Amino acid sequence: MSDGTTAYSRTTRTTPTRYKDRATWERETIHAILDSAYICHLGFIADDAPVVLPTIYARVGSRLYIHGSTGSRPLRGAADAGLKVCVTVTQVDALVLTKSAFNHSVNFRSVVAHGVAHQVTDPAELAVALDALVDHTIPGRSGEVRPANAKELAATAVVRLELDEVSAKTRDDGADDDEADLDLPYWAGVVPVSTVHGTPVPADSTTVPLPAHLRDFR
Amino acid sequence: MSDGTTAYSRTTRTTPTRYKDRATWERETIHAILDSAYICHLGFIADDAPVVLPTIYARVGSRLYIHGSTGSRPLRGAADAGLKVCVTVTQVDALVLTKSAFNHSVNFRSVVAHGVAHQVTDPAELAVALDALVDHTIPGRSGEVRPANAKELAATAVVRLELDEVSAKTRDDGADDDEADLDLPYWAGVVPVSTVHGTPVPADSTTVPLPAHLRDFR
Repeated sequence: MSDGTTAYSRTTRTTPTRYKDRATWERETIHAILDSAYICHLGFIADDAPVVLPTIYARVGSRLYIHGSTGSRPLRGAADAGLKVCVTVTQVDALVLTKSAFNHSVNFRSVVAHGVAHQVTDPAELAVALDALVDHTIPGRSGEVRPANAKELAATAVVRLELDEVSAKTRDDGADDDEADLDLPYWAGVVPVSTVHGTPVPADSTTVPLPAHLRDFR
Repeated sequence: MSDGTTAYSRTTRTTPTRYKDRATWERETIHAILDSAYICHLGFIADDAPVVLPTIYARVGSRLYIHGSTGSRPLRGAADAGLKVCVTVTQVDALVLTKSAFNHSVNFRSVVAHGVAHQVTDPAELAVALDALVDHTIPGRSGEVRPANAKELAATAVVRLELDEVSAKTRDDGADDDEADLDLPYWAGVVPVSTVHGTPVPADSTTVPLPAHLRDFR
């Protein structure tokens, strides 16, 4: 499985101790989950304590670019030695309701990536990363905006994380009640959960019709 | 503002260095955001590296109960000295599209709570926490399921975090383009984002009609 082409390498901390069958290291699955979302939760250590901040990200091959302008000093310090991070992406697909309180669950897809992030400082790479951040959120968008100028690029904090120690966990199943509970007169089943993008609302300054990249957007 | 009744106390790490006007320490705002979601991202330190895991949580007063059965050894170790954590909850409300790539943004509501989490070991508190976890996700649900028995309570890992060092950040605004970009022939505006719960799908074992707590669910 860990041949370097179809799967990421498997390590102690990417191997769960429970629900092992929900874990995978397959590149295809991991990339598909990463591409289905655009918000990640970025964890790092500051003053010997954990910090978790939401931000946007993009995947380019086996590399993540993470928007780092979150105002966090340690994050901006990733320019030098790099910063140990954990990047987690979670999509919830359903609430799973069982006849017992205990067996309730959630159908989900998540990716957890560990590694050392480095601040992107090269202007050419920054330009690629900024386009990727825009297009990962809304495919095709970067071609229909004014690109960042040199001053804006310099003001954009982006960190790079090479995907290496990364795994996915998924649950996609129905209610899993204990045999003894099956006849209880309660409602069991699943409630689907999805993220919906509504009708785009133009700003007053907008004089053009809705472009194709927004008409087709999810 | 930090009088202990209407706002949580403000510390260095809950005071952002950028976009200060987006931050608040108001209890009412923080509690409302926490009550609008049920998935958090829990950060802690394991082997000198950050770990971020998605899990469900519930708020009871100014206390969070966090489902800790994530298979993580350090988390289960919170029984003794406690575990430094950062709990982050994020709701995305809209993508904000501007005429420049640089000014793109996201409307969101997030809460970041820092502190030391302790494993809940008292059976009575565990029962309260488990009900709260079920009801925080689906209000009214805990009354229409089989409650956890002693064996299940013993197998449920829940950690408790007292809300103290906690802040919210929100953005709720339109496209904020530079004056010089306003006449560019690109589309600017907002794309609403929401989480939708679909029609509940009963399991084969379900013989009762859809209960009120699911008919009314979001």
